[in-house]
Order: sequence, then structure tokens, then C-alpha cells
Amino acid sequence: MHAYRTHTCGALTAADEKATVRLSGWVHRKRDHGNLLFVDLRDHYGLTQVVCDVSSPVFAALEGARTESVLTVTGRVVKRSPETVNPRLPTGEIEVVAEAVEVQSTAEVLPLQVAGDQEFPEDLRLRYRYLDLRREEVHANMVLRSRIITSLRRRMTEQGFLEYQTPILTASSPEGARDFLVPSRLHPGQFYALPQAPQQFKQLLMVAGFDRYFQIAPCFRDEDSRADRSPGEFYQLDFEMSFVTQDDVFAAIEPVLEGVFQEFANGRAVTPAPFPRIPYDEAMLKYGSDKPDLRNPLIITDVTEAFAGGGFGLFAKLIDGKGAAVRAIPAPGAAGRPRGWFDKLNDWARENGAGGLGYIVYGEGGETKGPIAKNLEADRVARIKEMAGLKDGDAVFFACDAPLKAAKFAGLVRTKVCDELDMLETGAFKFCWTVDFPMFELNEDSGQIEFSHNPFSMPQGGLEALETQDPLTIKAFQYDIVCNGVELSSGAIRNHRPDIMYKAFEIAGYSKEHVEEHFGGMLNAFKFGAPPHGGAAPGVDRMVMLLADEPNIREVILFPMNGQAQDLLMQAPNGVSARQLKELHIKLDLPPEPKKD
Amino acid sequence: MHAYRTHTCGALTAADEKATVRLSGWVHRKRDHGNLLFVDLRDHYGLTQVVCDVSSPVFAALEGARTESVLTVTGRVVKRSPETVNPRLPTGEIEVVAEAVEVQSTAEVLPLQVAGDQEFPEDLRLRYRYLDLRREEVHANMVLRSRIITSLRRRMTEQGFLEYQTPILTASSPEGARDFLVPSRLHPGQFYALPQAPQQFKQLLMVAGFDRYFQIAPCFRDEDSRADRSPGEFYQLDFEMSFVTQDDVFAAIEPVLEGVFQEFANGRAVTPAPFPRIPYDEAMLKYGSDKPDLRNPLIITDVTEAFAGGGFGLFAKLIDGKGAAVRAIPAPGAAGRPRGWFDKLNDWARENGAGGLGYIVYGEGGETKGPIAKNLEADRVARIKEMAGLKDGDAVFFACDAPLKAAKFAGLVRTKVCDELDMLETGAFKFCWTVDFPMFELNEDSGQIEFSHNPFSMPQGGLEALETQDPLTIKAFQYDIVCNGVELSSGAIRNHRPDIMYKAFEIAGYSKEHVEEHFGGMLNAFKFGAPPHGGAAPGVDRMVMLLADEPNIREVILFPMNGQAQDLLMQAPNGVSARQLKELHIKLDLPPEPKKD
Repeated sequence: MHAYRTHTCGALTAADEKATVRLSGWVHRKRDHGNLLFVDLRDHYGLTQVVCDVSSPVFAALEGARTESVLTVTGRVVKRSPETVNPRLPTGEIEVVAEAVEVQSTAEVLPLQVAGDQEFPEDLRLRYRYLDLRREEVHANMVLRSRIITSLRRRMTEQGFLEYQTPILTASSPEGARDFLVPSRLHPGQFYALPQAPQQFKQLLMVAGFDRYFQIAPCFRDEDSRADRSPGEFYQLDFEMSFVTQDDVFAAIEPVLEGVFQEFANGRAVTPAPFPRIPYDEAMLKYGSDKPDLRNPLIITDVTEAFAGGGFGLFAKLIDGKGAAVRAIPAPGAAGRPRGWFDKLNDWARENGAGGLGYIVYGEGGETKGPIAKNLEADRVARIKEMAGLKDGDAVFFACDAPLKAAKFAGLVRTKVCDELDMLETGAFKFCWTVDFPMFELNEDSGQIEFSHNPFSMPQGGLEALETQDPLTIKAFQYDIVCNGVELSSGAIRNHRPDIMYKAFEIAGYSKEHVEEHFGGMLNAFKFGAPPHGGAAPGVDRMVMLLADEPNIREVILFPMNGQAQDLLMQAPNGVSARQLKELHIKLDLPPEPKKD
Repeated sequence: MHAYRTHTCGALTAADEKATVRLSGWVHRKRDHGNLLFVDLRDHYGLTQVVCDVSSPVFAALEGARTESVLTVTGRVVKRSPETVNPRLPTGEIEVVAEAVEVQSTAEVLPLQVAGDQEFPEDLRLRYRYLDLRREEVHANMVLRSRIITSLRRRMTEQGFLEYQTPILTASSPEGARDFLVPSRLHPGQFYALPQAPQQFKQLLMVAGFDRYFQIAPCFRDEDSRADRSPGEFYQLDFEMSFVTQDDVFAAIEPVLEGVFQEFANGRAVTPAPFPRIPYDEAMLKYGSDKPDLRNPLIITDVTEAFAGGGFGLFAKLIDGKGAAVRAIPAPGAAGRPRGWFDKLNDWARENGAGGLGYIVYGEGGETKGPIAKNLEADRVARIKEMAGLKDGDAVFFACDAPLKAAKFAGLVRTKVCDELDMLETGAFKFCWTVDFPMFELNEDSGQIEFSHNPFSMPQGGLEALETQDPLTIKAFQYDIVCNGVELSSGAIRNHRPDIMYKAFEIAGYSKEHVEEHFGGMLNAFKFGAPPHGGAAPGVDRMVMLLADEPNIREVILFPMNGQAQDLLMQAPNGVSARQLKELHIKLDLPPEPKKD
């Protein structure tokens, strides 16, 4: 018989009745019924109930084993009596009558309980993460994460991608966030940087002719922690393809995302591929965001026309004098809400930086209510109802401001109203692409034209567009993949042509010399034969958070740092020796101690 | 028709005759036959011959495209005439008659050629790695590496392992090599370290109940470069299992290693599982190494007995007075070699620190030759022939020294003689496990008992062995997996019991307090219920080197650093700004400039 186990703790069923078996695992729970002792033995695979009579020679050993001690139990499988069968447990039909017990490891008194649902402070959980990870929910999250990543890899391989590892010790990149630096021992005064993303490497792989690259890539940014961002490191499904159009990129990754979400949906609905493509302008208009949450059924409409020159002077003046836009956010069925509800939303709007939140109520009987309806001409009130697709019994809110500001605020109102009316579709993963981002934008303060997103994306229309079009009308082959309002990734067809790159930067006010000085590495590579290429890099941690339905990223990472970027278990960061500093040619440069009064 | 390609450059065959197709790729080679121009268009998948008549409107564009420019060619597939079919090329039966050509990217004059077998200096190759990676052999190596890793992952998953990511920003570990350090911005004067291996994390995962962990894990050691060690980072197939014996570990990983080597063997033979298990003592005796290369058929024997008290005074005195051992290394069929061959080996031995290399030649006619045979009694000479399994026509060499030194030198002689006689089996991957490493060894200088390998391995016999046996006779559950004389990995059943750990350290002269101070993290985790566990971590880069038959690790890494730990392409390491240093609370501490005379 094997020294530790013939079966795992999740394996035995009624079919094993009368077998002599050996199990090893942790003492999950003990229940002492006087002359009968029940022990739930737990391993990675499940729980098995072990039972022992007070007269058994192993009773003392079992009774003495503190919770979370590790035991090896040899015994006989018996069927439970019908009234004690536990249908929620795969092993719930049987129990094991202990005949021999070996203690593999004795547990001291625990700082946190493994069994049960008790909540513990995060710092305690992270300090004793090896205990916390034994708890059912967090254990299941880590297994889910592993299975999701394995599935992603398999699906990418099936799409003809090969995984390649790019360097982790590399040079500072122009991604924009703060780098983690690593002092060089061999080159005094010089530093490696950890990659913020393998962006340059994956583009160089395309230049090197590899065609379809992917990597579950560790990325590093020295930025402050947020609920959806772990300090330090995170993973992305980084991919890049050569000789592709934007549609090819979508067609390659959609089956991967749809497939992995379907696989782990657990009854939740997943948008079937092809995912909706929503142009940036449309997204800003209809959803007030370039990351539309399509679980929210509310659609914003532009009703500027209905207010222009009308009787509601506040809006009419803003439209006429300042070029403001008015956006309408429907509130279906809200006509019956009390005045206080509208007042509360008005207060909320003021707290969020708006002057207020105008509205019209279209009563069930056809009557209209609210301060705007009082001042606006009836035909205009009716026109708004028609434009915004409203019916009697609905209400509508308005955002009036400069167009982009109005759009963004309307987006906030859309989310708020959806929450208030409890209209968010649950149990669904709604994907979409936001496409056609503008290449350039006007800086209102300086009057300068600037890149609006990524300067390295290919402008739609290429060189000809840059040379002949108004820059503010040029779109880029740049896109976001969005799920439930969460941006999983940006992506783009890259600009692989030095001539187009020089021209794009010229429009944004940069000289050829500037481009060569700052982006010479990529630019040089593009001068020796570069293929058209593009890709994206969906965030792995975010996908796992969505599928695990966890709002905090630390619930889906094995050994996360805390909010202060400390690993409380391994005690990182920590002090190092003078010898180590000397070898690395650095000295500490500590801030002055705070003065003691 | 797709903007860039209807087919890859490796796809077209005679079955596509007359189709109109579009291909994109790099101009690999051009051959101008006066009125006919041939262009080999290359992508990741293959080569296709494009042809163009001087009268064609696209002739000028094709002729003008410099090598390594990227083109999109539209044309008609035609069968080649029988005498121009290229059977070595999958597309060798056809060519594409160009009808339209679009230049996607123009190549400047190249610093190194992609086509052909010309050798280039390593620094040039690394500086233009994106060109170097287009070359057939290095491109194929990277694809092989990717496929090997994908295969390893699949096979590990099939063995019931789950892959988990452990932190890359972590704390300094007691592995023994030099850490890469990362200064913390939020915690002045403190540093993260990059993991030398995820050893502690994988053991903590077992303590956390995860049962079967693996990871293609990036590891970091700030050590100087060697042919088989890249400076900076490397990858290992890190794995760990709970509730296992040593045999379980072997049984889990053997099918993975055998399988992946079989899959990529390309006609080479692979040791079938189970791999031979060779106890450490036997390996040192028979192969003179704990990393035996089993492609070498020579077996060392101990012939001390035949020399003890005999007529060859030099050896007899060393045996008698200093406890020396004599090891015999056979040289099958070497009797006919000229005297100069034996002299040359003698010189080689002196260069390698030995006093010389005694030998006996057993002639085809039964006569014996050499200085030792002249002095040693005939029955002893005959006894050696029998002990070492020699026959007429063979020779035998001797290593005489203190037993461990004799063993190691005999191992060198075994390799040298095998080389000289060209006896190494080629086209084979010979695996074995070295097992039963000693737990302790005697430091000859201090007389102290020390750990001989890993202090954290479980001693065979457990606590009882430590309490009752002579420590120098205790073996550990510690093993190496070896392929063709290359150590792929050490591994062990770990010591998961604090009581056994305290005792083992006590024997090696360390107090309980010392253990708690230095290894408190793991020790504490083991106090809350730890399962018996073990594993190993075969080196991924080394496996790829073996399968790619590349002696230099830089040939199997996409973007390796050079021997001076520099990335010549990305220019890492490099200088950083004063602002960055200030944020990280460090200053440079540069060595003094060398004085100018």
C-alpha cells in the first residue's frame, strides 16, 4: 500500500464500499459525538469523512490531532446510513472507518481559521497566505486562474500562435508608467528595467518574421495599488500578428475570448463572436464612454436640436453661445418615482461636478412634469420623447455641456440611472470592440494638435490621409476590447512605416530628430524590412476577476503584495547588506527622518 | 482578396495550379536571368518562388526591391517545368507569376545577410537580433523552443499538475547565488529581489494544499556568463508534489521528459522510462561523476586490491600509507596504439593535475606492456584484466589517489579515453537518475560534519536515522536527473518536519536559534500542518540546447544578453535620470576612475 494514499480525499464513492484505503490530508473539522469521533479530512481534491469509535486503538491519535494537522488514515470504506448521506459532497455517500492513523505534521494553534466563512483582515490573510490559500473560495479562485490560463494558451495555439518568452531584464521603455529598476553589478551606474509590457519585443518579433506571437507575459509597473491593479506585477495575454488587417486581429482573438469565457461561464451568457464593433464617436454618444458596459440597456441620444433656440433658456444659451450639446439619458418607467428621487439624483450630479441634472417626466396619462417641461415648448418636449425613444411612464435626464464633457457626464448618469433602476443585466459577459479612435485631438488650452492615444498606431488612410486630411478627422486603426465595461486591452494595427511615422509626429509638432532620438530602436528595425502588423494584450488578471466575480485583484493572485507594495509573507521589500550595495555601486539616499518635537 | 495574403509562403503546391493568389513576405534572394527575374519570397512558413518577365509592368518594382524588403505579390500559380522542380522545398513544384507588386517596407543595406550560411560576430548578431532571427537555423531554434515548452506544459497538465505563477518581485532567498535587487520607491532603503528559483513559493503552495504544482518559471541569478548559462534570466520546469515518495516524483516526471524528448528526437534514441536509478556511490565508482554520461560505454572498476602490497611500489605505498584507491579505466582495443598515444595521455593527465597516468597494455598475443606491467606480479596483472573485464587487445589506465579524488580523476580519464577512441554513442539521449546522495560529509580540513548537498532534503530513515546512525552513513532523499552527462535538475523529497530539521542542523553544528533566525519563514509555515512533499526543476534552456544540439545557450534564447550581461539591441543596462534615482532613494557609488599616467 502506498505510504501516503491510495485515493485522494475527493475520490471515494459508494462503489468503493468495503475497500481498505489510505488517505492523507488536513484535519478540516472534528465533531466529537461522545463515543463517535468524526474527522473531515481535506486535500486539494475534496473532503472525506473519517469516523472512529471510542473503543478504537486509534481514537486517541485522532482526537488529539489539532485542526489543520496533516494525517494519514488507513481504514475501511463504509456506506453512510441514508439519513447521514451528504448529497452536496462527492464523497457524501461514504465514510472511512479509521484503523490506523499516522501524524505527518502537527499544527499549532492557528492565527486564522481554514474551515468556515469567517472574515479576516487582509494583512493577517497575506501574512499567513499559506493558510488563507487553504480556504475554499480563495483555493478555488487559484485553481480557476490556472485553468483559465491553460485554456487561453491552448486556444491561442489552436489559432496558430506560438508562445515566445521575451526578456524580463531589459531597458527602460517609453510606455509612460514608472519603471522598476535593477542596478547592474558589471556596469557601474547603469540599470536594467523590468518590462512594463513586451511591446517593443513583440513588434521586433514581427520584424524578425515570427508571424503569430503570444505570451502570458509578466509586466511590471511601479504604480500605486488600486482594487483592479496589483502593485508591482501583472499578467497579460500579449499577442501580435503580421500581415493582418484590424478584422484579422479581431477574428483571431474573438474565438479565444469567447471560448474561454464560455468554458468558465458557469451558466452566465457570453456575447457570441463576432463581437459588436462600436466606433469611438458612437460609443461616446450612445454610452458616454469608450468602454461601454452593454449590460446596461440605456442608450444616450443627442437632443441638442430640440433645445436649440427653445424656451428652456439655460440650455438654449449654452448651445447658442458656447456650442454646448445636450444629451438625453432615458429612465424607463421612472415617471412614478417621487420627487425626492429626482432631487437625490440632482444632488448626486452636483457632487460629481455638474451644475445639476435636468429632467422631464412623461407621466402615464400623457402629462409632463419637472422644471424643464414647464419652460420648454410642448412640441419640443414631444420631440425629445420621440428622439430618445421614450414612452409614457418614462423619465429622461439631460447633460448639457461642451460635447465631450456632456458625453462623459451622460455616461456617468447612464450608469447611475441603471443602478437606481436596477436594470443592469446580471449573469452575462457582454463583449464589444471600440474602434476608430481619433488619431489626433486638439489641446484646448494650447491650441496644439496632439496624439489622442497611441502615436505608434497606423492612421487610417496612411500617408495620404496625413498629407491631405484635416488631422482632427483622421481615425487610427486603434481599438479597445471591452467586457462588461472593463477595458481588457487596447490594441492597434501598428505604424510600421518610418515615412508615415515621421509625418504623424510632424503633425503633432515633433521634428524628425526628436523621433529618431526617442524612438530610434524601433525606427531602425523598421528600416530593414518590416511587415504590416498588429495585436493587443488582454489583461489576464482582469479576465480572471471577471470570471471569478471578484472585485479585488488580490483575490485572484497567489501571493499578492498588499496596498503598500509589501509581501508580508516573504517580507519583501527588506534591507540588504552593505556588501550587496557596494557590489551594485549604489548607496542609500534616505529621506531625512521626521523631526521629533 | 485579402489585403496581404491568400496563402502563406509555405502553402502552395501543384494542386493550386492556375489559382490567382496573393503572398506577402521578405525578398530572400533574387536571381536575374536577363529577361526573367526570380524572387524567393520568404515568410515564417516557407519560401515561394516568384517569377517575372522583363516585359511585365511589375518587373521594375520587383527588380528594384532590395533583399529583405517586404512585398505583397499577386499572381498566378504555374507548375514549374520538371527540370526546375525543387524537391527540397514544399512549394518546389510551383512558382507564382507576378501580376501586381506592392512594396510594404523597403530595406536599407543590411548589416548582416539573412540568406546563406555566412558566420557573423556575436555582437553584430545581437545588435541586429531582428535580422539574425530571420536566419533559418536560429529561427528554427526559437520555434523548436516554443514547441518544446508547449509540449512540456501539455504533458504536465496530463499528469495532473496545474500551473501557478509565483511572484517575480520578492525577497532575497537563501539559494546561495547572487540576487538581482530592485530598490523600493515606497519603502526607502529597502529592496525587492528577483527569485533565484521559486523554491520557497512552491513549498508554500504544498503547505497551502495545492498538491501538484508546476511552472515554466523565470529564474534570476546575477552570476557570470558561461556557454550553458545566460547571464541574468533562465527558465526551469519547476514542479512540486504532495504526499509522494521519491518513486512517485520519478513516475510523474519521467513520462514528461521521455515524451518531450521522443517528440523532438528527430530520429535520435531516447532512454525509455523508467530511467536507470544509479546510487551516488555507484555513480562515483563506475563513472567517476554524479552526472554520468551513459553514452560513454566505459565502466570504471576499483582495482585497489590487485595493487595492495604488490610489486608496483608507487601505488602499493599510497594504498598502504595513505588509504589511496586505484581505479581502472578500460581502453578497449587500444593495445595497438603507438607508444606516443600513451605518452600524450600521460601529458594530458599532468596538465590536469595528476602525477601521471599509469597503464597496462594487454597485447593481442597475450603479452603485456607498459611500466606498470614490468613491475607488477603477473598474477596481479592478470587479476586486473579479469576485474576490469578486459580482453587481449585492450589497454587500461589507472587513477590512484584518495578515494574521492581517484574517483573524480578516473571520471575525467573515462571521458578523455572515450573521446580518443571515438566511442561516444551519437544520436542518443541517455537519461538516468543519480540517487541516494549522502546527507552529510566530513570537511577534511576542519574535521567538521557538514551538509553535503541540500540541508532541506529529508534524510532517509528520518529522525530515527539522525538519532541513531553515523551521520556519514545517512543518505538523503535527494536526486539528480541527468541526460547525456548534463544535470537537468536536482530535486528532493523535502524535510517538512521542524523536529527533523532542528536535529539535522544540530548534527551539522547549528543551533536551534540559528535555524530559526535564518530559515524562520519556511519553518513557521511547517508548524501549521505541512504535507510530505518533493519535486525538482529541470532546466528548460538546457533541454532545448540538447534537443536543438546547440552547445551555446544564446542560440536557443530570443533576445539573449551577451557575455557581459548587456542587451545590445535594447541597450540595457543603461543610465537613468537623477529623478529616478531620487524616487528610489539611492545614489550612485561609482568606483574611482582609473588614473591616467
